Amino acid sequence: MSKVVAFGEIMLRLSTESHLRFSQAKAFGASYGGGEFNVCVSLANYGVNAEFVTRLPENEIGASALKEMRKMNVESKNVVFGGERLGIYFLETGAGARGSNVVYDRAHSSMATIEKGTIDWEKVLENATWFHWSGITPAISETAAEACLEAIKAAHKFGITISCDLNYRSKLWQYGKTPSDVMPEMLQYCNVILGDIDTAYFMLGIPKVNPNYQDEKSLPVLYTKLFDMIPNLKTVATTLRYSVSASHQRIGGILFDGKSVYHAAIKEVNPVVDRVGSGDAFMGGLIYGLQEYQNNNQKALDFAVAACCLKHTIAGDYNLVTLKEVENMLDGNASGLVSR
Amino acid sequence: MSKVVAFGEIMLRLSTESHLRFSQAKAFGASYGGGEFNVCVSLANYGVNAEFVTRLPENEIGASALKEMRKMNVESKNVVFGGERLGIYFLETGAGARGSNVVYDRAHSSMATIEKGTIDWEKVLENATWFHWSGITPAISETAAEACLEAIKAAHKFGITISCDLNYRSKLWQYGKTPSDVMPEMLQYCNVILGDIDTAYFMLGIPKVNPNYQDEKSLPVLYTKLFDMIPNLKTVATTLRYSVSASHQRIGGILFDGKSVYHAAIKEVNPVVDRVGSGDAFMGGLIYGLQEYQNNNQKALDFAVAACCLKHTIAGDYNLVTLKEVENMLDGNASGLVSR
Amino acid sequence: MSKVVAFGEIMLRLSTESHLRFSQAKAFGASYGGGEFNVCVSLANYGVNAEFVTRLPENEIGASALKEMRKMNVESKNVVFGGERLGIYFLETGAGARGSNVVYDRAHSSMATIEKGTIDWEKVLENATWFHWSGITPAISETAAEACLEAIKAAHKFGITISCDLNYRSKLWQYGKTPSDVMPEMLQYCNVILGDIDTAYFMLGIPKVNPNYQDEKSLPVLYTKLFDMIPNLKTVATTLRYSVSASHQRIGGILFDGKSVYHAAIKEVNPVVDRVGSGDAFMGGLIYGLQEYQNNNQKALDFAVAACCLKHTIAGDYNLVTLKEVENMLDGNASGLVSR
Amino acid sequence: MSKVVAFGEIMLRLSTESHLRFSQAKAFGASYGGGEFNVCVSLANYGVNAEFVTRLPENEIGASALKEMRKMNVESKNVVFGGERLGIYFLETGAGARGSNVVYDRAHSSMATIEKGTIDWEKVLENATWFHWSGITPAISETAAEACLEAIKAAHKFGITISCDLNYRSKLWQYGKTPSDVMPEMLQYCNVILGDIDTAYFMLGIPKVNPNYQDEKSLPVLYTKLFDMIPNLKTVATTLRYSVSASHQRIGGILFDGKSVYHAAIKEVNPVVDRVGSGDAFMGGLIYGLQEYQNNNQKALDFAVAACCLKHTIAGDYNLVTLKEVENMLDGNASGLVSR
Amino acid sequence: MSKVVAFGEIMLRLSTESHLRFSQAKAFGASYGGGEFNVCVSLANYGVNAEFVTRLPENEIGASALKEMRKMNVESKNVVFGGERLGIYFLETGAGARGSNVVYDRAHSSMATIEKGTIDWEKVLENATWFHWSGITPAISETAAEACLEAIKAAHKFGITISCDLNYRSKLWQYGKTPSDVMPEMLQYCNVILGDIDTAYFMLGIPKVNPNYQDEKSLPVLYTKLFDMIPNLKTVATTLRYSVSASHQRIGGILFDGKSVYHAAIKEVNPVVDRVGSGDAFMGGLIYGLQEYQNNNQKALDFAVAACCLKHTIAGDYNLVTLKEVENMLDGNASGLVSR
Amino acid sequence: MSKVVAFGEIMLRLSTESHLRFSQAKAFGASYGGGEFNVCVSLANYGVNAEFVTRLPENEIGASALKEMRKMNVESKNVVFGGERLGIYFLETGAGARGSNVVYDRAHSSMATIEKGTIDWEKVLENATWFHWSGITPAISETAAEACLEAIKAAHKFGITISCDLNYRSKLWQYGKTPSDVMPEMLQYCNVILGDIDTAYFMLGIPKVNPNYQDEKSLPVLYTKLFDMIPNLKTVATTLRYSVSASHQRIGGILFDGKSVYHAAIKEVNPVVDRVGSGDAFMGGLIYGLQEYQNNNQKALDFAVAACCLKHTIAGDYNLVTLKEVENMLDGNASGLVSR
Repeated sequence: MSKVVAFGEIMLRLSTESHLRFSQAKAFGASYGGGEFNVCVSLANYGVNAEFVTRLPENEIGASALKEMRKMNVESKNVVFGGERLGIYFLETGAGARGSNVVYDRAHSSMATIEKGTIDWEKVLENATWFHWSGITPAISETAAEACLEAIKAAHKFGITISCDLNYRSKLWQYGKTPSDVMPEMLQYCNVILGDIDTAYFMLGIPKVNPNYQDEKSLPVLYTKLFDMIPNLKTVATTLRYSVSASHQRIGGILFDGKSVYHAAIKEVNPVVDRVGSGDAFMGGLIYGLQEYQNNNQKALDFAVAACCLKHTIAGDYNLVTLKEVENMLDGNASGLVSR
Repeated sequence: MSKVVAFGEIMLRLSTESHLRFSQAKAFGASYGGGEFNVCVSLANYGVNAEFVTRLPENEIGASALKEMRKMNVESKNVVFGGERLGIYFLETGAGARGSNVVYDRAHSSMATIEKGTIDWEKVLENATWFHWSGITPAISETAAEACLEAIKAAHKFGITISCDLNYRSKLWQYGKTPSDVMPEMLQYCNVILGDIDTAYFMLGIPKVNPNYQDEKSLPVLYTKLFDMIPNLKTVATTLRYSVSASHQRIGGILFDGKSVYHAAIKEVNPVVDRVGSGDAFMGGLIYGLQEYQNNNQKALDFAVAACCLKHTIAGDYNLVTLKEVENMLDGNASGLVSR
Repeated sequence: MSKVVAFGEIMLRLSTESHLRFSQAKAFGASYGGGEFNVCVSLANYGVNAEFVTRLPENEIGASALKEMRKMNVESKNVVFGGERLGIYFLETGAGARGSNVVYDRAHSSMATIEKGTIDWEKVLENATWFHWSGITPAISETAAEACLEAIKAAHKFGITISCDLNYRSKLWQYGKTPSDVMPEMLQYCNVILGDIDTAYFMLGIPKVNPNYQDEKSLPVLYTKLFDMIPNLKTVATTLRYSVSASHQRIGGILFDGKSVYHAAIKEVNPVVDRVGSGDAFMGGLIYGLQEYQNNNQKALDFAVAACCLKHTIAGDYNLVTLKEVENMLDGNASGLVSR
Repeated sequence: MSKVVAFGEIMLRLSTESHLRFSQAKAFGASYGGGEFNVCVSLANYGVNAEFVTRLPENEIGASALKEMRKMNVESKNVVFGGERLGIYFLETGAGARGSNVVYDRAHSSMATIEKGTIDWEKVLENATWFHWSGITPAISETAAEACLEAIKAAHKFGITISCDLNYRSKLWQYGKTPSDVMPEMLQYCNVILGDIDTAYFMLGIPKVNPNYQDEKSLPVLYTKLFDMIPNLKTVATTLRYSVSASHQRIGGILFDGKSVYHAAIKEVNPVVDRVGSGDAFMGGLIYGLQEYQNNNQKALDFAVAACCLKHTIAGDYNLVTLKEVENMLDGNASGLVSR
Repeated sequence: MSKVVAFGEIMLRLSTESHLRFSQAKAFGASYGGGEFNVCVSLANYGVNAEFVTRLPENEIGASALKEMRKMNVESKNVVFGGERLGIYFLETGAGARGSNVVYDRAHSSMATIEKGTIDWEKVLENATWFHWSGITPAISETAAEACLEAIKAAHKFGITISCDLNYRSKLWQYGKTPSDVMPEMLQYCNVILGDIDTAYFMLGIPKVNPNYQDEKSLPVLYTKLFDMIPNLKTVATTLRYSVSASHQRIGGILFDGKSVYHAAIKEVNPVVDRVGSGDAFMGGLIYGLQEYQNNNQKALDFAVAACCLKHTIAGDYNLVTLKEVENMLDGNASGLVSR
Repeated sequence: MSKVVAFGEIMLRLSTESHLRFSQAKAFGASYGGGEFNVCVSLANYGVNAEFVTRLPENEIGASALKEMRKMNVESKNVVFGGERLGIYFLETGAGARGSNVVYDRAHSSMATIEKGTIDWEKVLENATWFHWSGITPAISETAAEACLEAIKAAHKFGITISCDLNYRSKLWQYGKTPSDVMPEMLQYCNVILGDIDTAYFMLGIPKVNPNYQDEKSLPVLYTKLFDMIPNLKTVATTLRYSVSASHQRIGGILFDGKSVYHAAIKEVNPVVDRVGSGDAFMGGLIYGLQEYQNNNQKALDFAVAACCLKHTIAGDYNLVTLKEVENMLDGNASGLVSR
């Protein structure tokens, strides 16, 4: 039976309600989330054994994050404690032409100050079959990048499948190194990558190409270049997002497995309840799909897109839907009938 | 002056807010509603004398339901008390591709354990001109079915117009009988039926036909079959609902009066605030329309469709709109201008 | 550096949440706003020195309105105190086919009972470069109309630019005079007018013409008539609003400067979070644009339209957006991407 | 069977939550209440047939007040419509040394502008056995005072018991008359008066005496003076309130029936959830007690005090407790055990 | 290391906020709790390995209860699924003289319809050191009583310590048997009992004695009688509760270990935030104390009383305090200083 | 006319509602406060010209803090922008025996990273008559201590009265220096100090003496020692707080002016709505009192104690009461009567 271990940061999310602006809010909704944790929640909801490894401060806010992990049935036994604070992000949910606004307050967090050697990866990964990380961890601090590389190497040593969501955020990467200084080595060991072609190129230090995702001819060539540079690569997937407005998105996806390009049909997402974490929902769906539908990459991709679409209807960071609900949408039932 | 009496169950409705899933909710909105009661509220809002008859538990939750009836100006003097509990339903309001989700917890309710002979129908119906029931009451228990049949027979004896909303719910009918065991006798006395053709056929024990509601030729034939089986039938109406998503519906309607088929133009409903009870809003509008516009079945149908559309903008089970608001929409004003 | 002074009423706004009807509400959201004050907030957000002059009751509700002015960085030093009460308006936010509903309770307010001579306009306008008023003040009472005319004359004497939002509300004007009794004199001094042609004609006492706003030929003629009657007029602008439903609007605008007609492209606004105050957001954008882009009336108009569109995404009366956000939309970025 | 009719004003009550000050509130709790209506609710809760007569504006706020009457099972069939607005009062609930703060905004209300002849008292009082009014109605306007006197005279003509809660509020009485101009004639017809001795003396135009409510000797003399001046008087009762802090009250009561003085033992009320309306709860309890315990004035008084104490634990204007709950406290059970 | 297993029912708790009555509530706070589960939460908070065994319905409400168990770090792996519904209780929190009010709606729950043989107790209790049950389970249905006896016998066979909270509720026991029919056999196996002497006598079928808990002489005699009837009994403890009002309690406790009587000093609890579950907090503290302070029954009792007192300050069913917080109170620090 | 300038940190305060624990909260109340800012709000409420100087991050959270300053009528024109983040503190409000709990997350804030030379004190203090700081600023970082010393020296140079609230917090002072390294120099310039004797001694590096605040003989000696060490000292005041529980405090105060000791009578504070900031309310009251009642130190002290008591009834960090309300309490009116 598969077991997925993810490593990353979980944050306190403070969000305004009913599209209020920050200065209008007398209260912030308080929840907990973060890219790699959100992937774990998706997997736990689909019945996969999922574990999240992170570093939390020893205070009541860290304890509350831990309770959230438990509630969501994500294994937390290898979480370590230390450092000063839980990272925070403030979220103002937009509408129509006004986009959502995120204010990060995650510097100096317990995860940002983690160091290599903190986690006993030999023990953590003992029964794991999959290791997931994202481009956020190497972006928050040099020591976090080192700690992440250590984990990747351990996973590689165990022969575990390794996935990475590139997740480039220009506001991070403030500690003096660029993605192309750090990411190439980390990506070497990856088997599955989620991200668009230009982000991958940028992180690997090669020029951007502004790809045409509808061009069946050029795409295999562009993707193959990644396979050339990353020896262990098996699958690259890209979420296609067309943003009509903050309230209306069109979502599709592409997957390349070294041989073929798979396209998922574009789906309308309208209205958007909460789009934060929809990429993580795609990632969670992809990890599930690649394992569950092993000889059917089209279905794996379609599952990821369906999961991503449903996430837009869920408040909070992670995708609180059941396997049955994603499968139902996969089967074409998206008309939102009342179940009674 | 007309007086409508309805018989059925009123439940405590516990709903999550802002599209939250059940497990995210720290609170449930608490309101009271149920198909036949919702019809009464519509009628009371239109100025019709409406009375609701049901059985409530003698506790604070039953007392709160009673207060709701009073608030909505629905006569409650013939409500009886007894039994263990008020039926409950939990509601999670969907969005986009995620449909709303209803969890019923209505078994063993005071209404489910009502028995024949509990209500003094001779007294209740004395000045009534219309009696309304729905297919939910015979679906919840055998004794409720018997109590409902008793009421229908009394109404028939008094020569009162009888209407029924077929309201088939597959999750009910758990007590060992099927609709076709019970409904044919109950429908015998009906003058007005709301429901689609296949549901009516199914309840009468005849094969479904998957009707084409745009086919002007076949429809009269299919409807006439119902008139053949139900001697007192005067009017059959069907709500046409095209569900684009949980947030976007298209609503129309059809009415057959034994002679002609009337079609109401399809209306866009976007966004949906709350679609639960929109069928009851149609029924309430139809009962009003058939009485108010006696020689104008087209207008009666249009009124029902307009009422149904407006209900989708109202939170809660029943249609909290004024007669003037429905008439305004009937007159084609649906552009949602601010009134000031 | 420019300084804008506006004169008018600020009210307590009591609104239901989540599209609830008045009778469903156990609480009303409480905020403060009013046409001319809303214009000041827009300007303050854009970095313009803005002052609001009004009359407030000496009680805790008046004090709370004053705190709101301060919070929004609108100068309030010339506010006067007196009278009985703060005007109130109740707001029920519609959805889809159900329009929003406003119940005014503003009669007998401190602003309605203001009298000529209450404000020392010589002092107030000393360093001002712009004076703004609207057609609401002369509509609430005869003494308010007189007090407003006094202010207009003082502004004219100082040679300050004067703008007026016509803002015709049929529910007001209850004190025995009609707009055409009062407005012609007040409008004489105006340099900038916001309002549609027929409203302007009506207020000036000339017959309505039901103008075709797409007809490039007739428009200059119709607008020129206003220039003929108002000697100081420099700019007339009109918001074009197409209401698909309470939740979906299409917004454009037209500006005439005595020579040319400028059109702003229609923008889709969907969904609508709150459309009250969107006209004031247009006015605020126009005042800003006319000053900032002095030789570019097209850009001034486009700025006003962009500001107006963004307002529909903001809860509350005034347009809580930054200059950068309006400029961003002006530059064509309306796809609502997350900023992170 | 007894039937009590009360005449007075019902207002919209806008209150801050959790002891917030007005300027901190983003929302006001919205409910409906007023002295004479609150008395009706108490009586309806005890099973007494109670009717409230008032004048409401024809808008959604008036309609909401009407729905509240219905919900509370208070007969409203003789309510009349007209006028401009529903009276409002703002409430900030204090704690400890900070008292609650009320801001009235009730001038110009529909009830304040009622006139003599508006209500058909012959019809209204036809089957009534008791008429209740309070000193608030003659305090709000001259026409309201006249309308109230008209009602009192009609009740007297029918031989109905008449009760009055003196309810002196110094902030009212702004229309040019003093209580001693108006009240003596109105009180002539009263059989039951609630109020302290000095207030009664003041309203009757005789000097205050600062009575000692513990002095068994002087009390009968002081009360007898009222009996001498009011020919129909049968019962005078006074609530004794010792305010330790806004959160801690001590409540007792005194009753004089022309012969004997009855004292109710002081009860501790701590904490206070909401003390507004506790005098009305006393009045409601007294009317009930005087009817139910006809030969036991001690019990009638004790019932009134128990009802008054319980009101302090109820949020909102009126006393939402059952007869059984008051009787339970009357029997000495005040230890607040959980009922399960 | 110790491991405690508890067996019982977890319910959905629906509570009004801010002391509102049921009929005032537009929403109910939703949480999950129940006597035996609450004990598990206390123990998990103190660092004890705690597992809860129950039967849940296979719907979203049951799933939410399961998530709550996980969040609170209570092992749930042996929870079984089946039956119709999760038991519900409605709670209205009182204040002062008005006691809290509980409306049970727990009949026909999944736990009430559990049957003997449903749980594999051999497996569940394999590594357990303590088994806890309460008098509620045999009170809800005959099959639940049988299932509970089965568990007790299995625990006895394994030689595990068995504790019972007598928890007599007169509203239950509706299925035709009395406590004295069922409890004597179940109590035979108990080592630790929480309950007052008269409840224990009543459940064992012997006459009540109305004990004086301050009488050092009679108490050992009365308690010894229980030891005579229950061969395995080691410890009996009783919570002493003096209810000044719903908002003010005085809490003490007594423990008898077959030899000596231990008294805990009375503590003031004022105000009461939520007293539901305070008995369970006592029980949880007692189980912890008896294990942790093995030769110090006084300290074990004091710990239980301190835990019980702290529970009154916590909203919800269970005692969300840390070991350190209880120890701090045990050390005499109850002055509520701010920790910063 | 006096003008008070304060220098310090303003933080985002995130608090749970209704006594919830952190892990129970789905939302945190969001407000803004901090010791020195709270003092400014008190003064502004009393009509004093108050200015607050601090450093804010250039993001939406910093902008919201600025809006709060403006709303409270505190001058903010010399606020500087820079640094990474606004300091945060989490607050869980206790009850009874459970104290409130504060989790600080203020490290690395914009104020903590301020440096000497950032503020142009010559300009800021130009028209000031009073400068206020507290022991928190030198406790958060070495550069903040330096920046504070710079301000103190500038104020001294201008001959302005300087006050300091010692405010010792053991959780701060983490940067390698102790209070006695830093504070003696800073306190040299102070004229008014708020703090207990032992804290003052500790900060000045002399042994604690555990003073008896009731001993009229020893107190002048102990206080005089401070006057001996601080050449400019005129007034020392100490809040006396007896904490019965988190919900019940007893508050008094002592003042020594170099000659006499003044005692304020102890006042009961029960219940406590929010005690955070009550020391700042004392400080604000003291600064006001010393200026307003220049020859009456007893009255100045009594004013400070009354202000402090009232603060306990106000939610949030600062003391939202009017001058009239404090004066009213000063006059002995603390019985919390309703004002209507």
